[in-house]
Parts: sequence; structure tokens; C-alpha cells
Amino acid sequence: MSPTRYGAQFGPDVTFLGVPRCDWQDPGSMSGADVVVLGAPFDGGTSHRPGTRFGPQALRTTDYLGHDGSRPSLALRVDGLRDLDVRDAGDVEMPPGDIETSLQRLRGAVAAVARSGAVPVVLGGDHSITYATGRGTADVHGEGRVSMLHFDAHADTGDIEFGSLWGHGQPMRRLIESGALRGDRFLQIGLRGYWPGPETLAWMAERRMRSYEMTEVVDRGLDACLDEAFGIATDGCDGVFLSVDIDVADPGHAPGTGTPEPGGLTARQLLDAVRRICWELPVVGMDVVEVSPPYDHADITAALGNRVVLEAVSAMARRRREAAGETFPSPSAPLLDGR
Amino acid sequence: MSPTRYGAQFGPDVTFLGVPRCDWQDPGSMSGADVVVLGAPFDGGTSHRPGTRFGPQALRTTDYLGHDGSRPSLALRVDGLRDLDVRDAGDVEMPPGDIETSLQRLRGAVAAVARSGAVPVVLGGDHSITYATGRGTADVHGEGRVSMLHFDAHADTGDIEFGSLWGHGQPMRRLIESGALRGDRFLQIGLRGYWPGPETLAWMAERRMRSYEMTEVVDRGLDACLDEAFGIATDGCDGVFLSVDIDVADPGHAPGTGTPEPGGLTARQLLDAVRRICWELPVVGMDVVEVSPPYDHADITAALGNRVVLEAVSAMARRRREAAGETFPSPSAPLLDGR
Amino acid sequence: MSPTRYGAQFGPDVTFLGVPRCDWQDPGSMSGADVVVLGAPFDGGTSHRPGTRFGPQALRTTDYLGHDGSRPSLALRVDGLRDLDVRDAGDVEMPPGDIETSLQRLRGAVAAVARSGAVPVVLGGDHSITYATGRGTADVHGEGRVSMLHFDAHADTGDIEFGSLWGHGQPMRRLIESGALRGDRFLQIGLRGYWPGPETLAWMAERRMRSYEMTEVVDRGLDACLDEAFGIATDGCDGVFLSVDIDVADPGHAPGTGTPEPGGLTARQLLDAVRRICWELPVVGMDVVEVSPPYDHADITAALGNRVVLEAVSAMARRRREAAGETFPSPSAPLLDGR
Amino acid sequence: MSPTRYGAQFGPDVTFLGVPRCDWQDPGSMSGADVVVLGAPFDGGTSHRPGTRFGPQALRTTDYLGHDGSRPSLALRVDGLRDLDVRDAGDVEMPPGDIETSLQRLRGAVAAVARSGAVPVVLGGDHSITYATGRGTADVHGEGRVSMLHFDAHADTGDIEFGSLWGHGQPMRRLIESGALRGDRFLQIGLRGYWPGPETLAWMAERRMRSYEMTEVVDRGLDACLDEAFGIATDGCDGVFLSVDIDVADPGHAPGTGTPEPGGLTARQLLDAVRRICWELPVVGMDVVEVSPPYDHADITAALGNRVVLEAVSAMARRRREAAGETFPSPSAPLLDGR
Amino acid sequence: MSPTRYGAQFGPDVTFLGVPRCDWQDPGSMSGADVVVLGAPFDGGTSHRPGTRFGPQALRTTDYLGHDGSRPSLALRVDGLRDLDVRDAGDVEMPPGDIETSLQRLRGAVAAVARSGAVPVVLGGDHSITYATGRGTADVHGEGRVSMLHFDAHADTGDIEFGSLWGHGQPMRRLIESGALRGDRFLQIGLRGYWPGPETLAWMAERRMRSYEMTEVVDRGLDACLDEAFGIATDGCDGVFLSVDIDVADPGHAPGTGTPEPGGLTARQLLDAVRRICWELPVVGMDVVEVSPPYDHADITAALGNRVVLEAVSAMARRRREAAGETFPSPSAPLLDGR
Amino acid sequence: MSPTRYGAQFGPDVTFLGVPRCDWQDPGSMSGADVVVLGAPFDGGTSHRPGTRFGPQALRTTDYLGHDGSRPSLALRVDGLRDLDVRDAGDVEMPPGDIETSLQRLRGAVAAVARSGAVPVVLGGDHSITYATGRGTADVHGEGRVSMLHFDAHADTGDIEFGSLWGHGQPMRRLIESGALRGDRFLQIGLRGYWPGPETLAWMAERRMRSYEMTEVVDRGLDACLDEAFGIATDGCDGVFLSVDIDVADPGHAPGTGTPEPGGLTARQLLDAVRRICWELPVVGMDVVEVSPPYDHADITAALGNRVVLEAVSAMARRRREAAGETFPSPSAPLLDGR
Repeated sequence: MSPTRYGAQFGPDVTFLGVPRCDWQDPGSMSGADVVVLGAPFDGGTSHRPGTRFGPQALRTTDYLGHDGSRPSLALRVDGLRDLDVRDAGDVEMPPGDIETSLQRLRGAVAAVARSGAVPVVLGGDHSITYATGRGTADVHGEGRVSMLHFDAHADTGDIEFGSLWGHGQPMRRLIESGALRGDRFLQIGLRGYWPGPETLAWMAERRMRSYEMTEVVDRGLDACLDEAFGIATDGCDGVFLSVDIDVADPGHAPGTGTPEPGGLTARQLLDAVRRICWELPVVGMDVVEVSPPYDHADITAALGNRVVLEAVSAMARRRREAAGETFPSPSAPLLDGR
Repeated sequence: MSPTRYGAQFGPDVTFLGVPRCDWQDPGSMSGADVVVLGAPFDGGTSHRPGTRFGPQALRTTDYLGHDGSRPSLALRVDGLRDLDVRDAGDVEMPPGDIETSLQRLRGAVAAVARSGAVPVVLGGDHSITYATGRGTADVHGEGRVSMLHFDAHADTGDIEFGSLWGHGQPMRRLIESGALRGDRFLQIGLRGYWPGPETLAWMAERRMRSYEMTEVVDRGLDACLDEAFGIATDGCDGVFLSVDIDVADPGHAPGTGTPEPGGLTARQLLDAVRRICWELPVVGMDVVEVSPPYDHADITAALGNRVVLEAVSAMARRRREAAGETFPSPSAPLLDGR
Repeated sequence: MSPTRYGAQFGPDVTFLGVPRCDWQDPGSMSGADVVVLGAPFDGGTSHRPGTRFGPQALRTTDYLGHDGSRPSLALRVDGLRDLDVRDAGDVEMPPGDIETSLQRLRGAVAAVARSGAVPVVLGGDHSITYATGRGTADVHGEGRVSMLHFDAHADTGDIEFGSLWGHGQPMRRLIESGALRGDRFLQIGLRGYWPGPETLAWMAERRMRSYEMTEVVDRGLDACLDEAFGIATDGCDGVFLSVDIDVADPGHAPGTGTPEPGGLTARQLLDAVRRICWELPVVGMDVVEVSPPYDHADITAALGNRVVLEAVSAMARRRREAAGETFPSPSAPLLDGR
Repeated sequence: MSPTRYGAQFGPDVTFLGVPRCDWQDPGSMSGADVVVLGAPFDGGTSHRPGTRFGPQALRTTDYLGHDGSRPSLALRVDGLRDLDVRDAGDVEMPPGDIETSLQRLRGAVAAVARSGAVPVVLGGDHSITYATGRGTADVHGEGRVSMLHFDAHADTGDIEFGSLWGHGQPMRRLIESGALRGDRFLQIGLRGYWPGPETLAWMAERRMRSYEMTEVVDRGLDACLDEAFGIATDGCDGVFLSVDIDVADPGHAPGTGTPEPGGLTARQLLDAVRRICWELPVVGMDVVEVSPPYDHADITAALGNRVVLEAVSAMARRRREAAGETFPSPSAPLLDGR
Repeated sequence: MSPTRYGAQFGPDVTFLGVPRCDWQDPGSMSGADVVVLGAPFDGGTSHRPGTRFGPQALRTTDYLGHDGSRPSLALRVDGLRDLDVRDAGDVEMPPGDIETSLQRLRGAVAAVARSGAVPVVLGGDHSITYATGRGTADVHGEGRVSMLHFDAHADTGDIEFGSLWGHGQPMRRLIESGALRGDRFLQIGLRGYWPGPETLAWMAERRMRSYEMTEVVDRGLDACLDEAFGIATDGCDGVFLSVDIDVADPGHAPGTGTPEPGGLTARQLLDAVRRICWELPVVGMDVVEVSPPYDHADITAALGNRVVLEAVSAMARRRREAAGETFPSPSAPLLDGR
Repeated sequence: MSPTRYGAQFGPDVTFLGVPRCDWQDPGSMSGADVVVLGAPFDGGTSHRPGTRFGPQALRTTDYLGHDGSRPSLALRVDGLRDLDVRDAGDVEMPPGDIETSLQRLRGAVAAVARSGAVPVVLGGDHSITYATGRGTADVHGEGRVSMLHFDAHADTGDIEFGSLWGHGQPMRRLIESGALRGDRFLQIGLRGYWPGPETLAWMAERRMRSYEMTEVVDRGLDACLDEAFGIATDGCDGVFLSVDIDVADPGHAPGTGTPEPGGLTARQLLDAVRRICWELPVVGMDVVEVSPPYDHADITAALGNRVVLEAVSAMARRRREAAGETFPSPSAPLLDGR
């Protein structure tokens, strides 16, 4: 292993379900990779319950199956971890008390991965990290060239929090203000509750963001909302970034998070949406954030986050293999058809 | 603050998300209030897991946002805590070992609030308190003038429990027997499981109650059931009392409760139903009961209960503002439309 | 009580919600019984989180109502524990470190119950016990005469686990290989995730099993899948065995289990499916497995498992009474109709 | 079993580690018993965290050994459950919301046991029950004839709580005021913290109570304090009542309790003190209170409470057998000496 | 209340057990106060488990008694909250991701309190805050004029952590390097385990710090170590700062902390040591740190931290009253002597 | 790494605090090692609460410091992981349902390590594994040549459990019966409670075992007992095996275990005893067993077990370096002396 590889900021140095190691500071180690996993063990941006610093470890390891770098998807009939070349670059060192340094380091790491040609899949951490994951992606793919599909109970477009511009309530504002991402290619799904207030919503409207509050999702159906969002996301952009805040799921399905907001998606809905996105759209980067192990009794939130990653990687693999001409049964066909 | 205000029976004296204090024993302190929150920290009526004595504190404080007395609803486009004048009168002192004294005190407090012209919103406590909240409301609005919308897994119409007439399995029977509420304007939604038995059901049928068991809710759809129930509730009554037992939600969404019964509503369904009721009907009183913090890992049940209160208050605010001639987009319109 | 009755392997000797005791080694004690409950406190077969050894105790006692041997079902309008003669034979002694002896003992006990004419309802334990429950049932009803309805996130058709042929990932393969059950009358509902791999799926296809993965369940609807499955299950078989792995439910509804897989059924769906099966089909045996109390915060998984048993027994009672010519309202009729 | 036996107020009807059942309302059923266990599942008197209603069940069953009615003590070389005739009369029905009725019932049950000649061992419940256990004992042994050894962090000599004379902060005052027990034969061990205030302490001093605060216990040593207390307790009294509030132990050893006060005894000290008391003194009654299962992670508080009962019963057995002329090695002799 | 008062960074604005509010930015509001409580809800400095941001709230409220601003100490026979004028200035706003700004703010607040003449009692937060509490105290009392009594499992004298100079492993080094405190008046008690390494220990030795590892504490006895330490602490210094990291207690007594190290003090020892220090020495400032509620099952760590504060304030009160000529019995005298 | 290395049976493949990997099936990989860690993730032998299968992972990783293969002991002034050559061979595959195969495999692995010249340090698992660890050690060092120092609440000398000769209650009997270890060189420390009964104790006495029950430990002092035990252990034996059942510690210090027995050692006592043994005696093998993560809130039991291993390895390192002529200060000398 490259001597520069940092390993794990907290706990032992493990990889996502046993995939091989690489080092984002060593381009050669990423050569040929399709997907590179990065840990962003940072909870210095959270406005309430901390703990997401242990998210990367939990997301990498919460699975009852062997950690053998293979996961054949029943529904999709591909093995995401084998059909694609998936590697794990370990954590980026992110001092919890220094958010600016932390985000700067992560931005660099994400850009390095993207530059290598691999899709960065970043395991948070609180949602403040998306400033860095989005920015680092745009550093490579170009400003305004990547659209955002953002699953969340919260808009994360605030301005100031505890007297700071940087926190898990602000990344989306910072991303749009920086020019990295376009407001009118920013799609938010699952918002609900009592935040933000009118001033921030006005700012969002002005930037022509498109936010699907849960009432709309329930009334129109999630798939109809996704159809519409996919159209916007692919209109004049080259790729899509998928950011999944686990609190988009209802607290019953995802209790282990910092700011749980009742009334969200089911786990099933979330997984199905992630599958569609990574199967139907050109995803160039992804993060999964806000899994907080100290509040995660029986580890069900970490399990869901782990499956979000696997669903995404599996769908990317199917997309890739179908693009190469292979054909498969529909995921809703009888499971054993054609086996 | 008035010298008579009791404050908190357990823990520090805090108000619902930071709204101003008032004192139910001091009518002047409630003058002009639209909604008055009362804590009923009583679990002496529960037949199984206790802990709801800590419900008022949990319902007042379980929210990751600042406790600043403001909550702008994304979906409803109103700020329930600001658009209405909402105050918190603290707890009623309810000795856990003396249910009759406790209910008598609470009945008096609820009546005092209702008399002031405000809507009492009572935070339980176990469901035995609804004898007092319902009775106190009827003391002011008149016997038989208020209908009941009762969300629960259980009918709470039992006769005797542990040799006592008073407990969380009996309040609805006592309310109807007292004449305070009419059996034929008593609507129950979400019942399921294995209680009560035939004798009690016969009593309920005789009183012409209307109880929607979950099979009916699933088969007809919740909205169809609500439509029908709304028609009954407003037939010849002046107002509606809304009683939400958090165990109407499935234990997956509300584990922190005393008598969890699998197979209930989702959190989303419960919130949507509460919204409809407080938006479409003239609600004159409300309670939220059976949130039991000792069993509430990661505080998701308290979070749901807090949102039930906020959803209700927000919908009341929208109802009020619409009645005053304002117009708003539909809650299922795109979130940023018209901002 | 018969001197041979073993009682409880762990903790005090209690019966399912207070039904009378019997002894599977003493046929006379089961004479006239319709249903006999057996505990299979075995977690020596689990590949991940243990704890199901405490499942039988939890399934017998997790209910907030009195343990009085009576449970009148609101929806079905029967009292399963009274309308049928339900007894509890206690646990089978199953040393955790000796899976072969353990399964052999359980097989014998199940066969003894079936031979008495009662329906064995076995409380697991991990899913490895289904080799014994299925085999013991076939020992009496005849090889290939009983079809299987298997609710699970996992196919449990693996070959080797930790170097052993016996574990909770293999029972279904062993059952089919033994000839006890037919592969083409083996219906699996709720599968999802990343196990097993292609080789095992090929084996399943070859045996003409019919497995409904969650994508199919979501797309077609659970009831449509059940309709189809019921047709297969009753084609040329005399009876049906129902095996419910609690992890078929989403981890939000069933966190206390060994191998939670996100994206499953709701508790409501599971209960409704169990009701249909035991009402519409000739169920000759049943097990409920994989409830693991150490991971079951607030006991909601045990509560669900307890209700799965009650739903099944209630539906069997209604089936029996309807077969005897009684008529009842539909479960989705208004609850108080005809009371 | 006698038809009057109540069984269990909560959960299944189990006996203390499997000893035989009896019925306190049926004197014949207690005939010949040395010890009768009674459950007092009441938490309506607690001023803070509830849950002790589940104490009797937890104290009866929290043991990893078989529930076979036998417990040979390694140290004392007797089998308390076999050398004495120990039976379990089940719970007394105590409605949580009616403390006066509840205590009255318990007082009657304790007196009935004492009248039978057996030592009542009462499993609480919160400490309010000691008014009933002490009073019921005095009803039989005579007012002022029984001294009290009271282990607790709190004096429990308050006057009014939540406007009520009855609660877990007052039983000792009520007992002395009633004349049942003498203030100057009331020994309290382990007090600490910040309650009660000067007025109550003055009342205690006036009644000539003797209270050992933890500073005195630490400075003089627990055994020296016990020596002194034993002298007082046996001066002019015929018997001793032992009341153990589990919160006398440090919260590290007993977290599962309602009002934990840091700085208490170790579990070892508590067990050794209980052993001395029941070995050296004529104990005529006992209670173990304030074990609260909802707060008892890993069940260590219930395990300690169970061992307090066993230590007491074992020491009573050794006292009895030594009184009958048997000789034994010292408990601190090498374990295998003379086996 | 002053308009500048910040209130609470997380959750509702409550004061320490109900003492009156003040505002550190408004000197008038602190005029005449003896003790001012400050919350430092910062966990951005922790190197492992976070959660101490919720420490101030937990330390202020974890007490089963009424929150009435009064706590008469049984042992010390004073009421610290009444005999002294104790006020609570609320939290200092400390953005978790910006440690330098956070510590700067806290330093200013502590200095403001000290300047007012009151003793600052700071509720952490992780131990990084002691750089600010120590520095702020020295800003007023003079560099090198205050000695340090530091209870901890860890020396907290590291140099770099996650690439940052600021964290909970470094405050003591920074304090000494800054000149605020003298290394040779820095007394550490309770160190153990495997940190720091030789280089850091050499730095400590060079600064002539005096660190009592647990082996020394056990072998010589805690009181002998304290006697020696008191002599050093008062040699040429005007006052003493007491910093209590709750992890100095054994994890059995204080599980809810970030970096638990087995083999520590008992809760009893810690309380007795704090009593001695605040009774015998001129304490001019204090902090209690590293209480982490997310890991604090049954709240026993918060309870211990709350009692550490109360023990300190009670002892300060007794010191003050004795200095004024009052006499009291010894804390180890019989509790009721002279009442 | 050797292709035969098994890695981890559960979860990711990590080593004890980051020490290098080796493979017990490849002698070359152990060449030169002083200590080889082996995981025995087996809980198929436990008679009550399972979960110790996750013990090896927890013992390897529960530490807040970096996993860097270095742990300088403050007290002992050595770095056990660096001064000795410590490697980790990963887990032995132990199917939970097949105890005989499992123990046979482990015995082989332990013997292979011992044969290499390294000290095997085995991380359990339940205590049944000590049959294999003891037997494997004797296979190399010779029957009867190794004495046993056994810390435990339980004698583990039972005969039959759940109808099986193999379980965590029997290993010590099996070891002695096999001839591998001598009964009269078998020293047990910390026994207490109510198991085993007279018959088993008679068997133990007959084999001339020496068992220190807690009463003896308290009365004589732990060090006096150890002094005596050390004399016996080294009388005519070549080496000592140290088996630490974590339940020898009081449940307050070690709640996360299968069969907690109140009244045990403090964590401090246990660590000090382990230090003495590995410093003063020729330890040739060691195991740490019965850490059960599912019951280990806040991970304090795993932390204690991790420190037991580190204390042992540190003391071995100091013993080695002193044997080589180095001198060190006493562990109770001031920490900074001579740094």
C-alpha cells in the first residue's frame, strides 16, 4: 500500500465490505478503478446530535454477510462490487474542530478521485461535507456541468449557523453560491417539517431550485416526481451527483441520525429511488451522510446506508453492462426466471 | 409570572419549543391566547409500561431546531407558533398514586383554558387523562356539543382495570357515561389487535360509536374513512376534540409507548390526518398521549408527538388565516412556487 | 403435569399468553388439542447476531394484556385461543453447540404434535430449526404432501456455512434435498438483498422453486403475489406449512433480528398476509423465527412475532368456525357492525 | 392452586426462581412455610423515574441458572431455597393510580403471611410499599416490637410529595407516626446527597432515629457501623425488619432505579451486609425495592436485587441450621475445605 | 434578562437546578454572585466518541429532586445553592467546527465571570475547553498565580491531534506553554492506561508537572496523594483551579464519556476528593468535562457530574461559613447529631 | 499474507490494535513472534446470554487510541506491543452449532502457536473455549506441566449441561479429566454465587483444586490470596496459563457478559492482578473470555477486556526486559520520575 494512505481516522482500517485498498494521493493506485470509496468522518458541522464521525466505519462494515468484496444483487442480477472495479481509499483526515480545513482536504480528495476517472462514493459524516464532495466533483467535471439529486428532509440551504458559514445546514447554498452547481439543476426530494424559513425559501426560489416536499411526493407519487426531476437533471448537464441524507427516510427506518424529522420515505422507497437514479442517469459522484451510530440501536440505520451504497453501485454496474450490450430480465420479473 | 404557576412536575420548567409562559389559574395571563399548552405528566393510569409522566417534557423539547417559539411549516406556509398566539401554562400537578385527584385537577385546568377562549392542547401522560381533557372541554362548550376524533390502537372503553374504574383503558367509557360526550359522535380510528372483548364492544355498539379498525382503514383508505368521520363529527356538534394516542402509529414509528400494537398507521399517515382535521374542522381541544420516554430509543416517538402538535397548530393557523381571506398554494404544490 | 415435560430451557416456565400446558412426549396430554405451541430456543445456527434462543420466551410473553389464554380478535371476531384448543408443550431442549442433536430432537417433537392431530406452532430460534419443523411435519403428513409458504428476506437455500451443512442459511435446501418438501411447491415471499449468489439461485431454479423478490412484490402488489402463490401451494398438496422469518419485515418494524435487510414488508402487510394464509389455506404447521431479544429495543420485534402467531391462530379459528357453518362480517366491515 | 390466588399483575405468573406457589388468602397454602415471597408491583409512589412495577417479575426471574427452586450458596454452604420452605404467593393487586388502596391491600397480605409464621419477603415496587410491609409486620408482631434496618440513599421520611401524604419519600415517617415502628429503633444506612432538608432532619432527630450517612460509613467502616446498629436494633425488640432500597448501592452497580444518587455502597458491601443481618439477627420480614427494569441495561440491577434476596434467605437458612446445632466452616475459609 | 444573554446552544434554556439567570456580557447581572455557572457545549475537540455538546444540559438537569435552586447537603450541613449566591449565565456559543473561535469566546466569558468576583463553574464540553477556562481564569488572577488540580485518566498534554494543535488531548500543554499556568503547580490525579508516550512524558517532566498515576494512588492511598498535592498547589499560588474530567472515574461509574479507561476512581472517591479540595483550598475556578449523554445509559454519568458540581459548591459554602466563624459537626459525625 | 489465513469469522478482518498479521497454519509467519493473538468467536457453549462470538472483534478494536500497534504503558514504562513481537493470526473458524469441531480446531491452532515458541493469547468467545486453549497449550508444554490461574465468578467444573458434556460450564472439568492440567495446580479466584452444587464441589475437592471464593478474597485481601496461589502455581510446573473470565469483575464494571454475578472484583483489582501474574510468573498462554457485545452498553466491558490483554502483554514485556538486565522505577513511583 502506498505510504501516503491515511487509513482510518477512528477505529481499525477496514474497507467497504472488503474491497481492495487504494490511495487518493497516489493516482496509480486508482488506475482503472470504476468506483472509489472515501470516508469523510466529520461531524463538526452538525447542529444537533453528533456521531456521524463514526458513519464511515459503520457504513463500511454493517452487513451480516462475509466481507469478501462481492455482493450479487438478487433484483438487478449483477455483482456491483465485482462487475465494477471498486476500491476504498480510506478516510480523509478531518479534524472535528476545524471545518474549513476538513472540507478543503475532502474537496481535494474527491477531485483526485474524479480526475482518475472513477466515481467517488463518499461516506459521511454530516451533510456539511457535501460542499466538498460537490465542489470537488465540479472541479473536475466543470462548473455547472453536474446536476444534483439531493434526498433529504432538510434543504440545507441556510446562511449562518452558530455564527458560522459552514455547517450541515448550509452546504447547498455554498455550492450554488460558489458556482460549482447550478441552482436550476438542483433537485431536492423529501423535504418536510419546519425549516428553513421564508427568507431562505425565497433565496432558493430565486435560484430556481426544484424542491419536492413530502406532501407533493405523497400526492403525486415518488416515481412521477422522479420522472420530472430526471428530465431537469439531464437537461444540459453532463452528469449527476447523488447526495443521500439518510434522514430523508422516516425516523422509524432511520433512527440513528442527527436531526430526525417524522413523516419521511420508507426504506423501500429510498432504495428503489437510488436504484432508478444510478441505473437511468449518468451518476458521476455520490455521498451518503448523517448516519450517526451512537443513536442507531440495532444498527438499522447503518444497514440502510450500507444498502444505499450497494444499490447505487449495483445499478451502476447494470447500467454499464447494459450499455455494453448485455440484456437482463426486469428486476420485477420472477426471481428465478432465466437462472 | 403569576405566583400560582406550578411550572414542571418533573425536571426543569420549559415551554413548548420556547413559546411564552402563562398560568391557567390566572385568566389574565391567558387573555388573547389562541392556544394554551398544558402538561399532564401522569402515568398512574397505565396498565402496562409506565413512563408517560415524562411525556410533557419530551413533547415540549424534542426538536433539533432552536427553541425560539417559531416554526414555519414548509407544506402549509404558515408559522403556527407565530401566526397564532400560543402559550404554555406548564404542568398540572398530578400525583401518580392518586388518579382521581389528578384527573380532577386536570379537568379544572382544561376548563379554565377553554373558558379563556383558547384551545387547550394537552401533553400527556397516559390516556386516562382524556377523561379530564374531554370533560373539561365539555364543561365549557356544553355537554354533547363537542364530538371526538380519537386516534388509537385501543378503544379505551373498558369498565374495570386492576379493580379500579379509572385507568388508561377506560376514559372513553367514562366520558360517554358522564354525558360529556355523545357516543354517536365518537369516532375512533386505527383500532386493532385483541382488546376489548365482546361485552365491551356491545356496549360501544349500543352507544352508537363509530370505530374504524385497521382492516377497514387499509381496505377503504384512510382518507375515505376520514371523509366519512368528518361528516359524522360535524353533524350537530359545535366543535371537535382531537385525541391522539401515539400508539395509533405502528411500533416501528412509535416504539416509545406503553402498549404497542403492531400493524398501525405510518407516521406520514398520522401527520396527514392530523393536518386535515385541524384544517377542515373546528377543533376546540386536543391531547397527545402515551409517549413514554424510557422506551423511546433515539427519541423518535417524542419527535413524532412533537410534530403531531406542530402539525395541528400549523393547520389551525392556516384555517384561521384562510378564514380571514388569505389564499395559499396547496400543500402539494411545488414547495418553492410563489415564494 | 407429565413428569417428562421439559419446561423452559432459559428462564421461567411460562406458556404462550397463559394457555394450558401439555407435553409432547405424552400423547394423552395433547389429546383433543387443535394447536400445540413448541419452543425451539436455538441460536446455534445463526451466521451473525445471536440471541434467538430467547425468542420463545419473548414470543410467549410480549403482550401488554393479561396472560389469561384469551385473545378476541377485533377484526376476525373470533377468539383464537378459546375457539381453538391451544396448548403449550414448553421448549424442546436444544444444546446451542450441537445443531444436529438439537434439530433431531425438534423434528421428533414436531412429528409427535402433528401425529396427535394438532397443528404445531413452533417458536424459534433461528431459521435452522425449519429443517426440523418441516421435516417433522412431513414425517406425519407424508413426503411431498405439504407445500411451504416461506416469508423471509433470505432464501435460506445455501449449501455450506462455516464449514457446516447445518445453519440458518441452509434449512430450505436440506428440506428439499431430503425429499420432505417439493421444490416446486416451495413459495418464498419477500426475498431481497445480496444473497445467495448465482450458483445457489441456479439450484433453486432447477428445483422449480418460486421466489418473490421484493421488487416483484412492490410492482405487482402483495395480494396478487399471494393469489398466485396460493394456487401453486394447493396444487396437489394436502396442507401448507407457514414459515415466518421476522426479517421479512423491514428493519424499521423488526429491528431485533440477526440479519436485518432493509426494504422489507411493513408489519401491517405481514399480518394481513398471515391472516389470509391461515384463513384461506389448510395450514398444518407453522413456525416464527429469528426474533432476537438482545437487539430488540422496546420489544417491538417480539410484539410483532407474538401478533403473527395470534393472527395465524385467529384466522385458523375463523376458518374452522366458518367451515362449521357460522357466518361473520368481513374483517373490513365497520368494527361495531352486528355486535 | 387456591382459586383466590391473584397470580401476576404484569406478565406471566412465575415464582421466585421456581419455588412452589402459595396463596396469602389461603392460610393452609402457607402452612409450614418458612419464607413467603410476595410481589408488590407498584410504582405509583415514585417521585421520579417509574418502572418498579416490573420489579417483582425482574427480581423473580433475573438469574442465568435454572429456575428449579434450589440455590446452594458457595460461601454459606447451605441451600436457602431448599433448607427453608420457601413459597411464592404471587403479586398483590395494586392499582398504580390508587396508592391508599394499594398499600392497604399489601399491608393485609404481609400480615397474613406473618400470621402464618413465615417471614414475608416482599419484592417491590417503589419504596412507598414499606409503609405497608412494615405496618403489616407490626400488625402481627406488635407495635414497637420490631426494629428496622433500612438501607437506602434517602431517608424516606418526608411529609408531603406532590400534595400527597403517600409516596416513596414518606413511608418511614408514616411508619413511625403510626406507632408501628419506634423511631429509636430505626437504623438507616447509606444515606447521602441533598435530601431531606433541615426540618425533616429535625423531625428525625426528635424521633431519635439513627442514620449513617456515607461519610460516616466510609470513615468508620461499614462493619463498625453495623456492629453498633445491631446493638441498637436488638435492644428491647423481638425482631428485625430489613428494608433494602437498591439505590443504597452506587449507580455504577445499580443503574436501574428511580432516583440514583452517586457515591453509594458497592454490590459486594451490600451483599455482605445483608448476609450479616440475616445470619446474626432475628429477621421477621424483608423487602427489596426500587429496582426499575426500564432503566436497567443488561439487567445488572435486577441481578443484584435477586442476589440480595438469595443472600438473605441463605443466611436465614444458615442461622436456622446453626441454631439446630449444625456446624459449618466460616464463609471465608477456603471454598473446598471439608467438601 | 439582559438582551445579550445567549441562552442554550442546544435544547431549552434551563439553569443549573433552577438557580437564577445572569449574563456574562452584563457585569451588573453578576454583581454580588459567588458562583456563576457557564455552559461550554463543545465537542469539536474530542478525539473519539462525541456527545459532550449535550453535557451542559445534562449536568444542569440530571437530578430527581425539584429544580428549585436549593440543595442542602446531608454531610456538609450547608445549602450550597442558597448559602452562596449561585447564578447561571447560560451557554457560550461554540460552533463545533471552529475550535479556535469557540475557545476564544469561552476564554472571554470565563474572564468576565472571574472579573466580576464570582467563581466560574464551567460545564463542558470536552476537555479542550480547559485551555479556555484556565486561560480566562489566569487573565484575571494573573499568569502563574493559579495552580491546577486536574482529575483525569489522561494527561491531556499532547502536541498534535488530527493535524491540529487544538483538541481535548492538548489543553494542558497549551495552558503551560502560554504561561497562564505553571507546570510545577500542575497536579494531575488518576492518570492510567497507554497515553501519552515517552516524548510527551519527557516534556511533562521537564515542566516539573506532578502526575499521580493510579498505581501510586492505590498504593499510597488517595488521601495521602491529595495531602501532598495540596501542599504543592498552595505553594506560592493565590488560588486553585479544579478541572474534573469525569473519566477519572472508572467506566463502571462513568460509562457516558468519550474515552473511557478502565481502572479508575470510584464515584465515592471522586466526590470525597472534590469535597476536600473545595473545603480546604481557595478554589477560584472549576470545570467538569467529558460527560457524553449519548453513551450514558440510565444517566448515571450525568448524575455523577451533577453531584461533582454540587459537592464543590457545598464545600465552598462550608468553607465560607466556617471562615465567617460558624462551626459545624464533622461530616463523618452521626447524621442527626445536633439537628 | 499466507493464503491459508482465515481472517475474521464475523465482520471485517482487523488485528489487535493494529499489530501485524500472521497465520497459525503457516509456522514461518509466526517465526520470531513473542505473542500471537487468536480469535475464538464461539458462543455455542454458553448456557445463557449469547453474544461472545463478537468478543474477538470487540476486544481487538475497543480502544479510543489509534490502531497503530503501539501502547506505551504509563505504569510499567514499557510498550508491550513494540517491546515484544506481537502478531495476530485472526480467527479460528468455529461453527456455533458444532462445539466439538470448533474446540478441536481451536486446540490445534493454540498448539501450533505454542509450538512456534510464541505465547498464545486467545480472545473468546465463551468459556467453553478454555478446554481447547488449555489442552492445546498442554499438547506442546506437556501434560501436567502447566498450572492454571483462573479468574471467574464460576468454577466451570460442571459435568452435563443441556444434555451435553461440552459447554461454558464444564471446560475446567474436562481439562483436568483429560490429564492436560493437574487439579492440584488449578487456582480459581473470584468464585461466588450459587453454582455449582455439592456434588461438583466434592469432585473439585477430590481433585485438590484451590478455589478462592470472594468472601475469602475480601477477608484476606486479594494480594494475600495471590501470593499463596503463586506459590502453588509454580510448585513443580514449568509455566502458567492465565484464563480471565470477564465476569470475575462485578457486573457494574463488566455488564456485557453472559452470566453476570454481583459482588465481584473491581476493574482496578482485576487489572492489578493480571499485571502481577504476567510480571511475576512464567505465563505460557492466556485467554480472555465472556465479553458479550450485545449486552455491553457504552462498550465498557470490551474496554476492560482489551485492557486485560494490554496489561498482560505489558507485564510480559517488562518481565522480559528486566530478565535482560534492564531496571525500571516501581509502577507506584511518581509517574514522571526519571522520564
